[in-house]
Amino acid sequence: MKIPKSHPRFVSLNIREKIVSGYNNGLVAKEGLLAHGRGEAFDYLIGERTMRSARTAINAAAVTLLTAKNSVISVNGNIAALCPKEIIQLAKITKSKIEVNLFYHNEDRKKKIVKHLKNAGAKQVLGTNPRSNRKIIGIDSPRRIIDKDGIFAADVLIPLEDGDRTQALKNAGKTIITFDLNPLSRTAQTADITIVDNVIRGMRLLISACKKAKTKKVSFNNRKALASAISEIKNNLKRRATLA
Amino acid sequence: MKIPKSHPRFVSLNIREKIVSGYNNGLVAKEGLLAHGRGEAFDYLIGERTMRSARTAINAAAVTLLTAKNSVISVNGNIAALCPKEIIQLAKITKSKIEVNLFYHNEDRKKKIVKHLKNAGAKQVLGTNPRSNRKIIGIDSPRRIIDKDGIFAADVLIPLEDGDRTQALKNAGKTIITFDLNPLSRTAQTADITIVDNVIRGMRLLISACKKAKTKKVSFNNRKALASAISEIKNNLKRRATLA
Repeated sequence: MKIPKSHPRFVSLNIREKIVSGYNNGLVAKEGLLAHGRGEAFDYLIGERTMRSARTAINAAAVTLLTAKNSVISVNGNIAALCPKEIIQLAKITKSKIEVNLFYHNEDRKKKIVKHLKNAGAKQVLGTNPRSNRKIIGIDSPRRIIDKDGIFAADVLIPLEDGDRTQALKNAGKTIITFDLNPLSRTAQTADITIVDNVIRGMRLLISACKKAKTKKVSFNNRKALASAISEIKNNLKRRATLA
Repeated sequence: MKIPKSHPRFVSLNIREKIVSGYNNGLVAKEGLLAHGRGEAFDYLIGERTMRSARTAINAAAVTLLTAKNSVISVNGNIAALCPKEIIQLAKITKSKIEVNLFYHNEDRKKKIVKHLKNAGAKQVLGTNPRSNRKIIGIDSPRRIIDKDGIFAADVLIPLEDGDRTQALKNAGKTIITFDLNPLSRTAQTADITIVDNVIRGMRLLISACKKAKTKKVSFNNRKALASAISEIKNNLKRRATLA
Protein backbone atom coordinates (compact mmCIF):
# COMPACT_ATOMS: atom_id res chain seq x y z
CA MET A 1 0.00 0.00 0.00
CA LYS A 2 1.12 3.55 -0.71
CA ILE A 3 1.17 5.65 2.46
CA PRO A 4 -0.24 9.15 1.88
CA LYS A 5 2.50 11.76 2.39
CA SER A 6 0.17 13.74 4.61
CA HIS A 7 0.22 10.93 7.18
CA PRO A 8 2.02 12.21 10.29
CA ARG A 9 3.87 8.89 10.72
CA PHE A 10 5.03 8.75 7.09
CA VAL A 11 8.70 7.92 7.86
CA SER A 12 7.96 5.22 10.42
CA LEU A 13 5.29 3.67 8.17
CA ASN A 14 7.77 3.53 5.29
CA ILE A 15 10.37 1.67 7.36
CA ARG A 16 7.53 -0.64 8.27
CA GLU A 17 6.93 -1.25 4.58
CA LYS A 18 10.61 -2.22 4.26
CA ILE A 19 10.20 -4.99 6.82
CA VAL A 20 6.93 -6.06 5.15
CA SER A 21 8.77 -6.34 1.85
CA GLY A 22 11.42 -8.45 3.65
CA TYR A 23 8.55 -10.66 4.73
CA ASN A 24 7.24 -10.85 1.18
CA ASN A 25 10.70 -11.96 0.02
CA GLY A 26 10.80 -14.77 2.57
CA LEU A 27 13.47 -13.26 4.84
CA VAL A 28 11.30 -12.15 7.75
CA ALA A 29 9.06 -14.41 9.85
CA LYS A 30 5.54 -13.36 10.77
CA GLU A 31 6.72 -13.15 14.33
CA GLY A 32 9.51 -10.88 13.08
CA LEU A 33 6.90 -8.37 11.99
CA LEU A 34 5.59 -8.30 15.56
CA ALA A 35 9.10 -7.92 16.94
CA HIS A 36 9.64 -4.93 14.67
CA GLY A 37 6.44 -3.37 15.98
CA ARG A 38 7.68 -3.80 19.53
CA GLY A 39 10.85 -2.01 18.51
CA GLU A 40 8.82 0.84 17.01
CA ALA A 41 7.14 1.42 20.37
CA PHE A 42 10.37 1.64 22.31
CA ASP A 43 11.95 3.82 19.63
CA TYR A 44 8.98 6.13 20.01
CA LEU A 45 9.64 6.35 23.75
CA ILE A 46 13.31 7.18 23.35
CA GLY A 47 12.33 9.92 20.90
CA GLU A 48 13.49 8.18 17.69
CA ARG A 49 17.05 9.46 18.15
CA THR A 50 20.22 7.94 19.62
CA MET A 51 20.50 8.63 23.34
CA ARG A 52 23.70 9.74 25.03
CA SER A 53 23.93 6.45 26.95
CA ALA A 54 23.73 4.52 23.66
CA ARG A 55 26.68 6.48 22.25
CA THR A 56 28.79 5.42 25.24
CA ALA A 57 27.76 1.80 24.72
CA ILE A 58 28.53 2.04 21.00
CA ASN A 59 32.07 3.27 21.70
CA ALA A 60 32.66 0.44 24.17
CA ALA A 61 31.28 -2.06 21.66
CA ALA A 62 33.61 -0.78 18.95
CA VAL A 63 36.73 -1.29 21.09
CA THR A 64 35.51 -4.70 22.28
CA LEU A 65 34.90 -5.88 18.72
CA LEU A 66 38.21 -4.55 17.45
CA THR A 67 40.19 -6.28 20.21
CA ALA A 68 38.30 -9.60 20.01
CA LYS A 69 40.10 -12.72 18.89
CA ASN A 70 37.14 -14.28 17.18
CA SER A 71 34.07 -12.08 16.92
CA VAL A 72 30.82 -13.20 15.33
CA ILE A 73 27.82 -11.17 14.17
CA SER A 74 24.71 -13.29 14.54
CA VAL A 75 21.83 -12.16 12.30
CA ASN A 76 18.19 -12.97 11.78
CA GLY A 77 15.73 -12.12 9.00
CA ASN A 78 14.72 -8.70 10.33
CA ILE A 79 18.21 -7.28 10.52
CA ALA A 80 19.11 -8.82 7.15
CA ALA A 81 16.07 -7.12 5.62
CA LEU A 82 16.72 -3.76 7.27
CA CYS A 83 20.46 -3.26 6.86
CA PRO A 84 22.41 -5.93 4.97
CA LYS A 85 25.10 -3.43 3.84
CA GLU A 86 25.78 -2.37 7.42
CA ILE A 87 26.16 -5.97 8.61
CA ILE A 88 28.76 -6.59 5.92
CA GLN A 89 30.59 -3.31 6.60
CA LEU A 90 30.75 -4.06 10.32
CA ALA A 91 32.00 -7.60 9.67
CA LYS A 92 34.71 -6.29 7.36
CA ILE A 93 36.00 -3.53 9.60
CA THR A 94 36.01 -5.70 12.76
CA LYS A 95 37.11 -8.92 10.99
CA SER A 96 33.99 -10.65 12.30
CA LYS A 97 32.28 -13.70 10.92
CA ILE A 98 28.59 -13.60 10.05
CA GLU A 99 26.25 -16.39 11.18
CA VAL A 100 22.54 -16.72 10.52
CA ASN A 101 20.63 -17.91 13.58
CA LEU A 102 16.86 -17.95 13.75
CA PHE A 103 14.45 -18.18 16.68
CA TYR A 104 11.63 -19.24 14.36
CA HIS A 105 13.71 -21.89 12.67
CA ASN A 106 13.19 -22.61 8.99
CA GLU A 107 15.86 -23.95 6.66
CA ASP A 108 14.34 -22.34 3.59
CA ARG A 109 14.24 -18.94 5.22
CA LYS A 110 17.81 -19.38 6.43
CA LYS A 111 18.96 -20.02 2.88
CA LYS A 112 17.12 -16.96 1.62
CA ILE A 113 18.79 -14.80 4.25
CA VAL A 114 22.23 -16.18 3.31
CA LYS A 115 21.51 -15.47 -0.36
CA HIS A 116 20.29 -11.96 0.44
CA LEU A 117 23.49 -11.23 2.39
CA LYS A 118 25.67 -12.67 -0.36
CA ASN A 119 23.85 -10.55 -2.94
CA ALA A 120 24.65 -7.56 -0.77
CA GLY A 121 28.34 -8.49 -0.84
CA ALA A 122 28.99 -10.96 2.01
CA LYS A 123 31.71 -13.49 1.21
CA GLN A 124 30.98 -16.11 3.83
CA VAL A 125 27.85 -16.65 5.91
CA LEU A 126 27.83 -19.45 8.49
CA GLY A 127 24.88 -21.30 9.96
CA THR A 128 23.56 -23.52 7.18
CA ASN A 129 26.00 -26.43 7.19
CA PRO A 130 24.40 -29.28 9.22
CA ARG A 131 27.81 -30.91 9.67
CA SER A 132 28.98 -27.83 11.56
CA ASN A 133 26.06 -27.92 14.01
CA ARG A 134 26.80 -27.65 17.70
CA LYS A 135 24.44 -27.06 20.63
CA ILE A 136 24.40 -24.42 23.36
CA ILE A 137 23.75 -26.05 26.71
CA GLY A 138 20.86 -24.71 28.79
CA ILE A 139 18.27 -23.58 26.26
CA ASP A 140 15.34 -25.31 24.61
CA SER A 141 14.55 -23.28 21.51
CA PRO A 142 15.76 -24.28 18.04
CA ARG A 143 18.24 -21.43 18.33
CA ARG A 144 20.43 -23.62 20.49
CA ILE A 145 21.91 -24.91 17.21
CA ILE A 146 25.08 -22.94 16.42
CA ASP A 147 27.97 -23.27 14.01
CA LYS A 148 31.20 -24.79 15.33
CA ASP A 149 33.26 -22.26 13.35
CA GLY A 150 30.98 -19.34 14.28
CA ILE A 151 29.15 -18.68 17.53
CA PHE A 152 30.50 -21.89 19.09
CA ALA A 153 34.10 -20.70 18.77
CA ALA A 154 33.51 -16.98 19.32
CA ASP A 155 34.88 -14.96 22.22
CA VAL A 156 32.83 -11.83 21.40
CA LEU A 157 29.33 -12.03 20.00
CA ILE A 158 26.99 -9.41 18.67
CA PRO A 159 23.59 -11.05 18.23
CA LEU A 160 21.41 -8.69 16.23
CA GLU A 161 18.25 -10.54 17.12
CA ASP A 162 15.73 -10.95 19.92
CA GLY A 163 17.49 -12.92 22.58
CA ASP A 164 16.42 -15.57 25.01
CA ARG A 165 19.81 -17.17 25.26
CA THR A 166 22.17 -14.43 26.38
CA GLN A 167 22.67 -16.07 29.76
CA ALA A 168 23.46 -19.44 28.16
CA LEU A 169 25.99 -17.80 25.84
CA LYS A 170 27.55 -15.93 28.75
CA ASN A 171 27.77 -19.20 30.67
CA ALA A 172 29.71 -20.51 27.69
CA GLY A 173 32.27 -17.76 28.35
CA LYS A 174 31.35 -15.30 25.61
CA THR A 175 31.25 -11.52 25.80
CA ILE A 176 27.87 -10.36 24.53
CA ILE A 177 27.22 -7.05 22.80
CA THR A 178 23.55 -6.51 22.00
CA PHE A 179 21.19 -4.00 20.45
CA ASP A 180 17.97 -3.84 22.43
CA LEU A 181 15.51 -0.96 22.43
CA ASN A 182 14.03 -2.24 25.70
CA PRO A 183 16.50 -1.48 28.51
CA LEU A 184 14.43 -3.63 30.89
CA SER A 185 14.52 -6.85 28.85
CA ARG A 186 16.35 -9.90 30.09
CA THR A 187 18.72 -9.67 27.16
CA ALA A 188 19.49 -6.02 27.86
CA GLN A 189 20.07 -6.77 31.53
CA THR A 190 22.23 -9.84 30.91
CA ALA A 191 24.48 -8.67 28.07
CA ASP A 192 27.93 -7.19 28.70
CA ILE A 193 27.29 -4.18 26.48
CA THR A 194 23.71 -3.21 25.63
CA ILE A 195 23.16 -0.59 22.96
CA VAL A 196 19.67 0.79 23.61
CA ASP A 197 19.00 2.10 20.13
CA ASN A 198 17.26 1.47 16.85
CA VAL A 199 19.50 -1.03 15.07
CA ILE A 200 19.55 0.93 11.78
CA ARG A 201 20.77 4.13 13.45
CA GLY A 202 22.99 2.22 15.89
CA MET A 203 24.74 0.05 13.29
CA ARG A 204 25.77 3.10 11.30
CA LEU A 205 27.16 4.75 14.43
CA LEU A 206 28.93 1.54 15.45
CA ILE A 207 30.63 1.31 12.06
CA SER A 208 31.83 4.88 12.28
CA ALA A 209 32.98 4.32 15.90
CA CYS A 210 35.03 1.31 14.70
CA LYS A 211 36.64 3.49 12.04
CA LYS A 212 37.58 6.16 14.58
CA ALA A 213 38.55 3.95 17.54
CA LYS A 214 42.11 4.64 18.70
CA THR A 215 42.30 3.10 22.14
CA LYS A 216 42.39 -0.58 22.99
CA LYS A 217 41.13 -0.11 26.50
CA VAL A 218 37.51 -0.02 27.44
CA SER A 219 35.91 0.88 30.73
CA PHE A 220 32.19 0.39 30.60
CA ASN A 221 29.52 -0.34 33.19
CA ASN A 222 26.42 -1.83 31.55
CA ARG A 223 24.29 -1.50 34.67
CA LYS A 224 25.08 2.21 34.85
CA ALA A 225 24.45 2.72 31.13
CA LEU A 226 21.10 0.96 31.37
CA ALA A 227 20.12 3.07 34.36
CA SER A 228 20.96 6.17 32.29
CA ALA A 229 18.89 4.88 29.38
CA ILE A 230 15.88 4.30 31.62
CA SER A 231 16.38 7.71 33.12
CA GLU A 232 16.49 9.32 29.65
CA ILE A 233 13.23 7.57 28.71
CA LYS A 234 11.64 8.76 31.96
CA ASN A 235 12.72 12.34 31.22
CA ASN A 236 11.30 12.06 27.70
CA LEU A 237 8.01 10.89 29.14
CA LYS A 238 8.04 13.72 31.66
CA ARG A 239 8.72 16.32 28.99
CA ARG A 240 6.00 14.93 26.74
CA ALA A 241 3.53 14.65 29.58
CA THR A 242 4.10 18.35 30.28
CA LEU A 243 3.59 19.23 26.62
CA ALA A 244 0.43 17.09 26.45
CA MET B 1 5.83 -23.20 15.94
CA LYS B 2 5.36 -24.61 19.43
CA ILE B 3 6.74 -22.27 22.09
CA PRO B 4 8.69 -24.17 24.75
CA LYS B 5 6.94 -23.87 28.13
CA SER B 6 10.22 -22.93 29.72
CA HIS B 7 10.27 -19.66 27.73
CA PRO B 8 9.85 -16.77 30.18
CA ARG B 9 7.42 -14.93 27.85
CA PHE B 10 5.21 -17.98 27.25
CA VAL B 11 1.83 -16.20 27.78
CA SER B 12 2.65 -13.18 25.66
CA LEU B 13 4.05 -15.40 22.90
CA ASN B 14 0.83 -17.41 22.87
CA ILE B 15 -1.35 -14.31 22.38
CA ARG B 16 1.06 -13.46 19.61
CA GLU B 17 0.33 -16.80 17.99
CA LYS B 18 -3.39 -15.88 18.11
CA ILE B 19 -2.80 -12.79 15.99
CA VAL B 20 -0.56 -14.80 13.68
CA SER B 21 -3.39 -17.28 13.20
CA GLY B 22 -5.70 -14.33 12.43
CA TYR B 23 -3.18 -13.39 9.79
CA ASN B 24 -3.16 -16.92 8.40
CA ASN B 25 -6.97 -16.77 8.13
CA GLY B 26 -6.84 -13.54 6.12
CA LEU B 27 -8.24 -11.24 8.82
CA VAL B 28 -5.06 -9.48 9.87
CA ALA B 29 -2.80 -7.44 7.56
CA LYS B 30 0.96 -7.83 7.69
CA GLU B 31 1.09 -4.31 9.04
CA GLY B 32 -1.42 -5.42 11.67
CA LEU B 33 1.18 -7.83 13.02
CA LEU B 34 3.54 -4.90 13.47
CA ALA B 35 0.85 -2.86 15.17
CA HIS B 36 0.22 -5.71 17.59
CA GLY B 37 3.93 -5.78 18.38
CA ARG B 38 3.84 -2.10 19.24
CA GLY B 39 0.92 -2.81 21.53
CA GLU B 40 2.85 -5.62 23.24
CA ALA B 41 5.67 -3.24 24.07
CA PHE B 42 3.42 -0.60 25.57
CA ASP B 43 1.52 -3.25 27.50
CA TYR B 44 4.86 -4.40 28.89
CA LEU B 45 5.55 -0.86 30.03
CA ILE B 46 2.22 -0.45 31.80
CA GLY B 47 2.90 -3.75 33.58
CA GLU B 48 0.41 -5.90 31.61
CA ARG B 49 -2.45 -4.90 33.95
CA THR B 50 -5.18 -2.28 33.76
CA MET B 51 -4.05 1.00 35.30
CA ARG B 52 -6.20 3.06 37.66
CA SER B 53 -6.48 5.86 35.08
CA ALA B 54 -7.79 3.36 32.52
CA ARG B 55 -10.55 2.25 34.89
CA THR B 56 -11.73 5.86 35.19
CA ALA B 57 -11.72 6.19 31.39
CA ILE B 58 -13.61 2.89 31.03
CA ASN B 59 -16.37 4.07 33.37
CA ALA B 60 -16.71 7.35 31.47
CA ALA B 61 -16.79 5.43 28.18
CA ALA B 62 -19.56 3.16 29.46
CA VAL B 63 -21.84 6.07 30.38
CA THR B 64 -21.06 7.89 27.11
CA LEU B 65 -21.90 4.80 25.04
CA LEU B 66 -25.10 4.08 26.98
CA THR B 67 -26.38 7.65 26.58
CA ALA B 68 -25.42 7.97 22.87
CA LYS B 69 -28.14 8.33 20.26
CA ASN B 70 -26.27 6.47 17.57
CA SER B 71 -23.06 4.78 18.63
CA VAL B 72 -20.82 2.82 16.30
CA ILE B 73 -18.01 0.38 17.03
CA SER B 74 -15.47 0.55 14.23
CA VAL B 75 -13.32 -2.57 13.92
CA ASN B 76 -10.29 -3.74 11.99
CA GLY B 77 -8.76 -7.17 11.46
CA ASN B 78 -6.66 -7.24 14.62
CA ILE B 79 -9.51 -6.61 17.01
CA ALA B 80 -11.78 -9.01 15.11
CA ALA B 81 -9.11 -11.71 15.44
CA LEU B 82 -8.45 -11.04 19.13
CA CYS B 83 -11.94 -10.59 20.60
CA PRO B 84 -14.94 -11.03 18.27
CA LYS B 85 -17.24 -12.12 21.12
CA GLU B 86 -16.48 -8.99 23.13
CA ILE B 87 -17.20 -6.70 20.14
CA ILE B 88 -20.61 -8.32 19.74
CA GLN B 89 -21.39 -8.20 23.46
CA LEU B 90 -20.46 -4.54 23.64
CA ALA B 91 -22.59 -3.74 20.58
CA LYS B 92 -25.56 -5.56 22.08
CA ILE B 93 -25.42 -4.01 25.54
CA THR B 94 -24.86 -0.46 24.22
CA LYS B 95 -27.14 -0.82 21.15
CA SER B 96 -24.20 0.10 18.92
CA LYS B 97 -23.71 -0.71 15.27
CA ILE B 98 -20.57 -2.48 14.08
CA GLU B 99 -18.65 -1.20 11.07
CA VAL B 100 -15.50 -2.66 9.51
CA ASN B 101 -13.01 0.01 8.53
CA LEU B 102 -9.46 -0.77 7.42
CA PHE B 103 -6.34 1.37 7.15
CA TYR B 104 -4.70 -1.16 4.84
CA HIS B 105 -7.74 -1.39 2.60
CA ASN B 106 -8.63 -4.69 0.96
CA GLU B 107 -12.15 -5.74 -0.03
CA ASP B 108 -11.40 -9.43 0.35
CA ARG B 109 -10.04 -8.99 3.84
CA LYS B 110 -13.03 -6.83 4.73
CA LYS B 111 -15.40 -9.60 3.68
CA LYS B 112 -13.46 -12.16 5.72
CA ILE B 113 -13.69 -9.95 8.80
CA VAL B 114 -17.45 -9.52 8.32
CA LYS B 115 -17.85 -13.28 7.95
CA HIS B 116 -15.71 -13.91 11.03
CA LEU B 117 -17.87 -11.53 13.10
CA LYS B 118 -21.09 -13.07 11.78
CA ASN B 119 -19.81 -16.53 12.64
CA ALA B 120 -19.20 -15.24 16.16
CA GLY B 121 -22.85 -14.07 16.36
CA ALA B 122 -23.02 -10.55 14.87
CA LYS B 123 -26.34 -9.84 13.12
CA GLN B 124 -25.36 -6.82 11.06
CA VAL B 125 -21.91 -5.56 10.11
CA LEU B 126 -21.63 -2.36 8.07
CA GLY B 127 -18.84 -1.20 5.81
CA THR B 128 -19.01 -3.42 2.75
CA ASN B 129 -21.87 -1.91 0.75
CA PRO B 130 -20.36 0.41 -1.91
CA ARG B 131 -23.72 2.17 -2.32
CA SER B 132 -23.52 3.30 1.31
CA ASN B 133 -20.04 4.83 0.90
CA ARG B 134 -19.48 8.33 2.21
CA LYS B 135 -16.21 10.24 2.71
CA ILE B 136 -14.73 11.93 5.76
CA ILE B 137 -13.39 15.34 4.83
CA GLY B 138 -9.76 16.10 5.68
CA ILE B 139 -7.96 12.75 5.39
CA ASP B 140 -6.23 11.02 2.51
CA SER B 141 -6.05 7.36 3.49
CA PRO B 142 -8.49 4.77 2.16
CA ARG B 143 -10.05 4.82 5.61
CA ARG B 144 -11.84 8.04 4.72
CA ILE B 145 -14.54 5.80 3.20
CA ILE B 146 -17.27 5.29 5.78
CA ASP B 147 -20.81 3.90 5.79
CA LYS B 148 -23.67 6.41 5.65
CA ASP B 149 -25.67 4.35 8.15
CA GLY B 150 -22.66 3.73 10.37
CA ILE B 151 -19.77 6.05 11.20
CA PHE B 152 -21.18 8.82 8.97
CA ALA B 153 -24.35 9.08 11.06
CA ALA B 154 -22.81 8.32 14.45
CA ASP B 155 -22.68 10.72 17.37
CA VAL B 156 -20.42 8.50 19.49
CA LEU B 157 -17.67 6.39 17.98
CA ILE B 158 -15.40 3.77 19.43
CA PRO B 159 -12.76 2.99 16.81
CA LEU B 160 -10.90 -0.14 17.92
CA GLU B 161 -8.11 0.44 15.45
CA ASP B 162 -4.98 2.48 14.93
CA GLY B 163 -6.17 5.97 14.25
CA ASP B 164 -4.97 8.71 11.97
CA ARG B 165 -8.33 10.30 11.57
CA THR B 166 -9.52 11.12 15.05
CA GLN B 167 -9.20 14.86 14.42
CA ALA B 168 -11.20 14.60 11.18
CA LEU B 169 -13.93 12.63 12.93
CA LYS B 170 -14.01 15.14 15.79
CA ASN B 171 -14.28 17.95 13.24
CA ALA B 172 -17.33 16.10 11.93
CA GLY B 173 -18.87 16.53 15.38
CA LYS B 174 -18.41 13.04 16.78
CA THR B 175 -17.44 12.05 20.30
CA ILE B 176 -14.48 9.66 20.11
CA ILE B 177 -13.74 6.90 22.60
CA THR B 178 -10.52 5.07 21.84
CA PHE B 179 -8.33 2.28 23.12
CA ASP B 180 -4.69 3.22 22.75
CA LEU B 181 -1.81 1.70 24.69
CA ASN B 182 0.36 4.68 23.80
CA PRO B 183 -0.79 7.68 25.85
CA LEU B 184 1.47 9.95 23.79
CA SER B 185 -0.01 9.12 20.39
CA ARG B 186 -1.96 11.68 18.40
CA THR B 187 -5.05 9.51 18.64
CA ALA B 188 -4.73 9.26 22.41
CA GLN B 189 -4.21 13.00 22.69
CA THR B 190 -7.07 13.93 20.34
CA ALA B 191 -9.84 11.56 21.46
CA ASP B 192 -12.50 12.57 23.99
CA ILE B 193 -11.99 9.46 26.10
CA THR B 194 -8.77 7.46 25.76
CA ILE B 195 -8.58 4.08 27.44
CA VAL B 196 -4.86 3.35 27.83
CA ASP B 197 -5.14 -0.41 28.09
CA ASN B 198 -4.74 -3.69 26.27
CA VAL B 199 -7.92 -3.99 24.20
CA ILE B 200 -8.63 -7.57 25.32
CA ARG B 201 -8.53 -6.69 29.02
CA GLY B 202 -10.17 -3.30 28.44
CA MET B 203 -13.09 -4.57 26.35
CA ARG B 204 -14.05 -7.05 29.08
CA LEU B 205 -13.94 -4.32 31.71
CA LEU B 206 -15.91 -1.96 29.47
CA ILE B 207 -18.63 -4.58 28.99
CA SER B 208 -18.92 -5.13 32.72
CA ALA B 209 -18.90 -1.35 33.35
CA CYS B 210 -21.81 -1.02 30.89
CA LYS B 211 -23.72 -3.70 32.79
CA LYS B 212 -23.17 -1.94 36.12
CA ALA B 213 -23.57 1.70 35.01
CA LYS B 214 -26.32 3.49 36.99
CA THR B 215 -25.68 7.16 36.36
CA LYS B 216 -26.25 9.06 33.14
CA LYS B 217 -23.84 11.82 34.00
CA VAL B 218 -20.18 11.73 33.19
CA SER B 219 -17.42 14.04 34.30
CA PHE B 220 -14.13 13.11 32.71
CA ASN B 221 -10.99 15.02 31.82
CA ASN B 222 -9.00 13.16 29.16
CA ARG B 223 -5.94 15.39 29.51
CA LYS B 224 -5.78 14.63 33.22
CA ALA B 225 -6.31 10.90 32.68
CA LEU B 226 -3.53 10.78 30.08
CA ALA B 227 -1.16 12.63 32.39
CA SER B 228 -1.94 10.01 35.07
CA ALA B 229 -1.31 7.21 32.60
CA ILE B 230 2.08 8.67 31.60
CA SER B 231 2.90 9.12 35.24
CA GLU B 232 1.99 5.48 36.01
CA ILE B 233 4.28 4.33 33.20
CA LYS B 234 7.09 6.50 34.57
CA ASN B 235 6.62 4.97 38.03
CA ASN B 236 6.64 1.48 36.55
CA LEU B 237 9.91 2.23 34.82
CA LYS B 238 11.31 3.61 38.04
CA ARG B 239 10.23 0.55 40.02
CA ARG B 240 11.55 -1.87 37.40
CA ALA B 241 14.78 0.06 37.07
CA THR B 242 15.31 -0.30 40.80
CA LEU B 243 14.63 -4.04 40.66
CA ALA B 244 16.93 -4.44 37.66
